[in-house]
Amino acid sequence: MAAPGRYLEDFTVGLAFRSPRAIRVTAERIKSFAAEFDPQPSHVDEGTARGSLFGELVASGWHTAAVAMRLIVDSDLGLSGQGAGVAIESMRLPRPVRSGDELRVEGAVTEVRPSRSQADRGVVKFQALVYNQRDEVVLEAAHVIMVRRRR
Amino acid sequence: MAAPGRYLEDFTVGLAFRSPRAIRVTAERIKSFAAEFDPQPSHVDEGTARGSLFGELVASGWHTAAVAMRLIVDSDLGLSGQGAGVAIESMRLPRPVRSGDELRVEGAVTEVRPSRSQADRGVVKFQALVYNQRDEVVLEAAHVIMVRRRR
Repeated sequence: MAAPGRYLEDFTVGLAFRSPRAIRVTAERIKSFAAEFDPQPSHVDEGTARGSLFGELVASGWHTAAVAMRLIVDSDLGLSGQGAGVAIESMRLPRPVRSGDELRVEGAVTEVRPSRSQADRGVVKFQALVYNQRDEVVLEAAHVIMVRRRR
Repeated sequence: MAAPGRYLEDFTVGLAFRSPRAIRVTAERIKSFAAEFDPQPSHVDEGTARGSLFGELVASGWHTAAVAMRLIVDSDLGLSGQGAGVAIESMRLPRPVRSGDELRVEGAVTEVRPSRSQADRGVVKFQALVYNQRDEVVLEAAHVIMVRRRR
């Protein structure tokens, strides 16, 4: 269950968030996501993955990024309802995600400011780290979102 | 049909690529992607989207990013088989994607260099711009991938 949506005035620099539960990534979903969005040998099938740079089936980075978003929406950051993603300032994928990995997110708000051009909204930046079940970072991203101000 | 996979030695700065066909984003897929990965009001349902910052159903930025990856894999960039995404240096979503939008990609390689630590591979950077059917940019991203060298 996501936290209630925050307005710009409810965000502060340093505000920390985390996902309430882990999401398990299955081989079936790795392969079906890849078939639709990223049909490269390392993602679509165990057999073709053996000959790839990874040597085994790994999730598309875009699959990992999508799971990361779900973890963020489910977290106590309180995005739901007020926000709109506008940019990613950087995203790194230091380790691959494999079948059976269980992912969770931790993060913190890094910047909060009113929009220069639109009086009804503002900009929030936050850093999000996705960990696997061995507490290794699999994704690190700096998000920029647009958030409503209270009227 | 994707182009044959390129090795590091086959990439050059300025090498341009484009998708052979557009991908149409449907309301059904916007909603089902959001239900799994980004269940915010602007993405999950036309009704809840009316009260959101966008005022109408729009695709999750991560859905747009995943479609962008498919367009890149299908393009003549020649990723398939040799590459591994390691980072995104920046990603902007200047306009939302709506139901019925038809997306295509154009891009170019910006950097090619051998890896400092691993002799069998190298780094390729490329810029990708995703356009809708009105030739408006909906996503712009700077990709960093690891690519095999010829033996």
